[in-house]
Amino acid sequence: MKKDSIGIGMLGLGVIAGQVARVLRDKSGILANQVGCPLVLRKVKVLPEDLSRPQVEEIGPHLFTTDDDEFFTEPGIDIVVEAIGGEHPALEYLTRALAGGKHIVTSNKEVIAKHRAELLNLADKNGVALRYEASVGGGIPLISRFRYDLVANRIEGIYAIINGTTNYILTRMAEEGADFSSTLAKAQELGYAEANPENDIEGIDAAYKLAILASLAFHTEVRPESIYREGISRLSSRDFQYAREFGFAIKLLAIAKESDGVVEVRVHPVCIPEDSLLAKVDGVYNAVLVEGDLVDKVLFFGQGAGPLPTSSAVIADVVSAAQDILLGIAGGARWELGPGRVIKPMSDIETRYYLRLNIADRPGVLAQIAKVLGDRQISIASAIQKLADRAAQTAEIVIITYPALERAMQSALGELVHLSGVKEVSNFIRVEALS
Amino acid sequence: MKKDSIGIGMLGLGVIAGQVARVLRDKSGILANQVGCPLVLRKVKVLPEDLSRPQVEEIGPHLFTTDDDEFFTEPGIDIVVEAIGGEHPALEYLTRALAGGKHIVTSNKEVIAKHRAELLNLADKNGVALRYEASVGGGIPLISRFRYDLVANRIEGIYAIINGTTNYILTRMAEEGADFSSTLAKAQELGYAEANPENDIEGIDAAYKLAILASLAFHTEVRPESIYREGISRLSSRDFQYAREFGFAIKLLAIAKESDGVVEVRVHPVCIPEDSLLAKVDGVYNAVLVEGDLVDKVLFFGQGAGPLPTSSAVIADVVSAAQDILLGIAGGARWELGPGRVIKPMSDIETRYYLRLNIADRPGVLAQIAKVLGDRQISIASAIQKLADRAAQTAEIVIITYPALERAMQSALGELVHLSGVKEVSNFIRVEALS
Repeated sequence: MKKDSIGIGMLGLGVIAGQVARVLRDKSGILANQVGCPLVLRKVKVLPEDLSRPQVEEIGPHLFTTDDDEFFTEPGIDIVVEAIGGEHPALEYLTRALAGGKHIVTSNKEVIAKHRAELLNLADKNGVALRYEASVGGGIPLISRFRYDLVANRIEGIYAIINGTTNYILTRMAEEGADFSSTLAKAQELGYAEANPENDIEGIDAAYKLAILASLAFHTEVRPESIYREGISRLSSRDFQYAREFGFAIKLLAIAKESDGVVEVRVHPVCIPEDSLLAKVDGVYNAVLVEGDLVDKVLFFGQGAGPLPTSSAVIADVVSAAQDILLGIAGGARWELGPGRVIKPMSDIETRYYLRLNIADRPGVLAQIAKVLGDRQISIASAIQKLADRAAQTAEIVIITYPALERAMQSALGELVHLSGVKEVSNFIRVEALS
Repeated sequence: MKKDSIGIGMLGLGVIAGQVARVLRDKSGILANQVGCPLVLRKVKVLPEDLSRPQVEEIGPHLFTTDDDEFFTEPGIDIVVEAIGGEHPALEYLTRALAGGKHIVTSNKEVIAKHRAELLNLADKNGVALRYEASVGGGIPLISRFRYDLVANRIEGIYAIINGTTNYILTRMAEEGADFSSTLAKAQELGYAEANPENDIEGIDAAYKLAILASLAFHTEVRPESIYREGISRLSSRDFQYAREFGFAIKLLAIAKESDGVVEVRVHPVCIPEDSLLAKVDGVYNAVLVEGDLVDKVLFFGQGAGPLPTSSAVIADVVSAAQDILLGIAGGARWELGPGRVIKPMSDIETRYYLRLNIADRPGVLAQIAKVLGDRQISIASAIQKLADRAAQTAEIVIITYPALERAMQSALGELVHLSGVKEVSNFIRVEALS
C-alpha cells in the first residue's frame, strides 16, 4: 500500500506513553528511514484529569482528546498504541480499535494474558495485527523469538525471572541477610515496589507474563488462573542461609514445561544452583531461559521494565506494524492459535524439595520424619541439623529430597506437623536442577 | 503469491546441511503450518566425493547432483541454503543464486563478513532476500534483533563471547590453573578445537562475527580487516591467578562501540569483573551483551555452534523467507545499508590495562616504572608485587591502570623493556569495566 505517512493513535498518557511519544518525535528520521515513510502521532486519548500533565504541553495539546468517539473515528490512525494498562477499559478499547481495522501495539500484560485468544481472533477477522512484545520483559526481545527465531523448535521448558520487584527484594535479602518485611519496606521507599505490592510479591504479575510466554511457546491458550502461584512473603533470611550452605540461590521463577502434550505452569520461589546463570541475575533485571529441542538452551537478559526499555519494544512493534501496512500484509495471517493443551494439576508435578523444620532436640525425631517421607516414596538426599534454641531444646533441620511427587510432599507436610517431635514446618521450597 | 510448495535447494553436505535436511523432513508438518504450504527439499549440490556419505542415503540419492548448472537452473528452487562455508566458492555460488532470483539462507560467517554489502545490494537488485541469522551465535537469536527488536535504539556497545573454542580453553585454564598449550591439546583431543586451531585461537573467527554484528548495529560496513585482533595464546596460568586477585575473569571478547559516528572494533583478551554476567559464561557457550540508548543493556546467551542450534537458525530464516515469498514481498526492501563510518585507529582507544612485569627485586624499580607510565598520563590504580625467584632476585609485579590511551600504553611498553630494573614485560591485558 502506498502511503505518505503512517498515523499513530495513543491510548493513555503514563510514563510509557510519554516516552513512546518522545521517541516518535526524537527519532522520527531514523524511524521513517526504517519504515519507508514517516510515523506521525495523530491523536492521544486521555482522561480529563490527564490534561494538566506536563507531557501534554511537550507532545502538543492539539493532539489530545478525552472523547472516545473522536479517537476511534479518526481516519488518519493506522496503528493504536495502548498504554493504559489493566483489564478494563483496555479490553473494550482494544476490541473497538480492532473492529475498526486498526493495528494494535500494546504493553498491557494483564489484558493480553486474559484475552489473547479472543483479541487475536478479532485481529485476524479484521485483517490487522495485534502486537504485544512490550507486555513481557520490557525491552528484552522475547515474544517475537517464539514466532520467528525459535519457530523450528519444540519448546521444552521456560524458566523466567520476570518480575523485577521480587527479584530486587530477593537479591537484597540474600546479600544483606535481611528479612522480608524490612526489605519490602526499603524497596517501597526506593520506588522499586508499589504501595500495594500484592501484584508483585504474590506472583500475580509474573503469572500474567508466564501465561503469555507459555501460550506462545506451546501454541495454545494458557490462562493465568491455570497457573499455580505462590509469592515470596514466607521466605526468611534463614532460608537464604541454608540454601547457600546447600549451594543454592533462591529466586521467584515462572516455570513452564511441556511433555507429551501436557503443560506444567507455575510461579513460586525456587532453590536453584548458585552457579547457574539465572542465579546471577540480580536486582531489578529479568532473564528468561528457554529450552528447545534444537537450540538446547538460550537465555535472554535485560531490564524487564521502565519507560525507556519498554518504549524500545513498543516502537519495534510499531515499526513492524507500519512495514506490514506498507507491504499490504494482513498481520494476523502469519500464525495461528494451536489446539488446547492439558494443564497438569500441581499435585502431579515432580520436583525436589527443600524442607525446613523446627524439631525437638532429642533422639528419634529424624527417624520419625524419615518414615513419614519414606512411606510416601520421598527420599532424603541431604540434611543439615543445627541447634536452634538450647533453652527450649529445639533444633532446626533442613532436608533436601530427591525428586518426588507434589501430591506426596503435600501429604507428608500434613502428617509432619502432627509428629510429636516436630514443633513447626517452617518452610518448604521447591528445587530446580538448572544448569 | 499462491504456491503449492516452497522449493529448497541446498549447497553442501556437512553436518549442518545434514541436520537442516533432517529438520525439514521430521518437522515438515509444523513448518508447513507456519509457512502456509510445505517446504520441499528439491536438490542438493555436493562434491563428487560427498556422494558416498551416509547422509545421501538418508536424504534420498535422487536429490543429489554434482553439477552446478543442474542446480542453478532447477526451476523448482525458491530458496537456496548455503552450508559449504568459507569464502570460495561460496561467494560465486551465492552470487549466481541471487542473480538467478533465489532467496538465500546462509550460515557462512566468512563470506558474509567479507561480502555482506555487495551480496545485499545484489539481493536487493534481484528482489530477493539474503538471510544469515546462523552466521553468528548458532541458535541464539541475534541478527534479526538488530533489524527488528532493537530498531529504535542507537546501539552504543557490543561485548561478545562469540567463539566457543577459545571460551572453552579460557574456562579450563581458569578452573584448572593449566597453561595454554596443554589446554589447547586437550581441547583438540575432545574435538572442541580443530587440528589447525588458528582461526579460533587467533580471533579470526570472532572478528568475522564481530564484523557482521557491528555492520548491523551501526548500519554501516565494518570489514573484518578493520578489526584490531589479538588471540589468546600469550595468556598464562599466572595471568588468571593475578586477575582473580584483582576480582577479574579473563575472556576473549569481541567489542564494538560507537560514539559521535566513530566506530571502535576489536577482538582481544580482556579482564572483566568476575561478578559480571559475561564472566559467568563458561565452556563452549556464547553470549552477546548489547547496549542501546533505550534498552540499556540486553544479553543473549546460548550455544554458539553445533548442528542442532545452527539448524534452528537456518530453518527460522527459511520459514521467514518462505512466508515473504508467499506474501509477495521483495525481501531486500525492508532495510538498507547506511553511510560508511570512520573506524577508530587502535592507538586512539582508551581503556584500563593489566600489566605483568618481571623486575629486579631492589628498591627504586617501581618508581622507574611509575615514572614511565606517569610521563604518558597513565595512572596506577592498584598493584600487587610478589617475590618470584629468590635466587635470581627477581620479583613479579602486576599493575592495574586507570583509563589511558592505547597509544600512550604502547609507548610505555616500548620504554619499560629498556628500564634497567625491568627483566621482562610478561603480559598486558586490556580491562573493560562491564557491569
